Amino acid sequence: MKNIITISRQFGSGGRSVGRQVAEKLGIPFYDKELVEQIALESGFAPKFVEENGEHSPGKSIFSYAFAAPGTPGIMNGLSTADFLWNIQCSTILQLAEKGPCVIVGRNADYILKDRPDALHVYIHADTPFRVDRIVRLYGESEKSPEARLQEKDKRRIVNYQHYTGRTWGAAANYDICLNTAKVGIDKAVEIILSLAQDDK
Amino acid sequence: MKNIITISRQFGSGGRSVGRQVAEKLGIPFYDKELVEQIALESGFAPKFVEENGEHSPGKSIFSYAFAAPGTPGIMNGLSTADFLWNIQCSTILQLAEKGPCVIVGRNADYILKDRPDALHVYIHADTPFRVDRIVRLYGESEKSPEARLQEKDKRRIVNYQHYTGRTWGAAANYDICLNTAKVGIDKAVEIILSLAQDDK
Repeated sequence: MKNIITISRQFGSGGRSVGRQVAEKLGIPFYDKELVEQIALESGFAPKFVEENGEHSPGKSIFSYAFAAPGTPGIMNGLSTADFLWNIQCSTILQLAEKGPCVIVGRNADYILKDRPDALHVYIHADTPFRVDRIVRLYGESEKSPEARLQEKDKRRIVNYQHYTGRTWGAAANYDICLNTAKVGIDKAVEIILSLAQDDK
Repeated sequence: MKNIITISRQFGSGGRSVGRQVAEKLGIPFYDKELVEQIALESGFAPKFVEENGEHSPGKSIFSYAFAAPGTPGIMNGLSTADFLWNIQCSTILQLAEKGPCVIVGRNADYILKDRPDALHVYIHADTPFRVDRIVRLYGESEKSPEARLQEKDKRRIVNYQHYTGRTWGAAANYDICLNTAKVGIDKAVEIILSLAQDDK
């Protein structure tokens, strides 16, 4: 059984939708990027550890953040907002995984939870035309062309991932399974992930 | 239905074994790297086109190779052995796919057949310990450490793929599905590929 499922995805690939359906079918919590962000910011813990460990790469003693006393002064001291948020999101994701089975979308959770043998790391991607069609249908038109929106989002994810993990975004080696939803379809992707999650191996 | 299945794989990941099992279960021909090479060299066609089109990137008019007259003098004129072989292997792979359903392992077939909507492109990879264990079991020990053997093979595939396709080896975007056999197991990988191949979508 793989109880912890992380879903990394290209914008517009349907990865979030795949993740939500997998969580629903397994009857386990679903945490998307926004929810992780909200939990992290509301949690209020770890400022001292964030401050003290800000230079360390994630994964190195970061789990101890969860045990830091809340309310310690000096939040963000010497850390950029992005680094601060990244640090508390790391500890939040480690905590959520400790709490029990769940699906986590985004926030580089594949990297943060890479050492958990009970985690299944999924990457969902799709060809540009599929993603263009999907974002226009879901989010409507905007001043920018859908292609430009995709490119901008892709670029930000690539840079963020490289910066915080040192790994290459979208490299198959980072994940246990990668699926092209434009080719296999969203329903089939859900079915395959469920069958892997429920596998005895 | 996806009738044409290409399998790209990291050395030692079990990708060849996955491909053979998929072909057996679907009752379709299985072409591995060596077989493609042999067919290409025995076919004897295309020397003229190889000569004339040697500078072109693969995929550009390469299909016409298949219709070139055999026995034309000037084979390899101006082409390296590797480029010569690559060219006739491209035409061989395009021809094999035209002939009917099959599984093709290696030889950058994912790239050569990237425009076929009836093709399913698979990448099989695995963590180093899994691959080390596998190559020692299958091929025995040698003077070089298994890690060095893996690294050398990986490097050659990366360079060859980049050179002939302009794409990055192992990037999820090149494939419809990527599987880590160390995590999901070889049997499960076979099962998933079969279910995708037989899908109606």
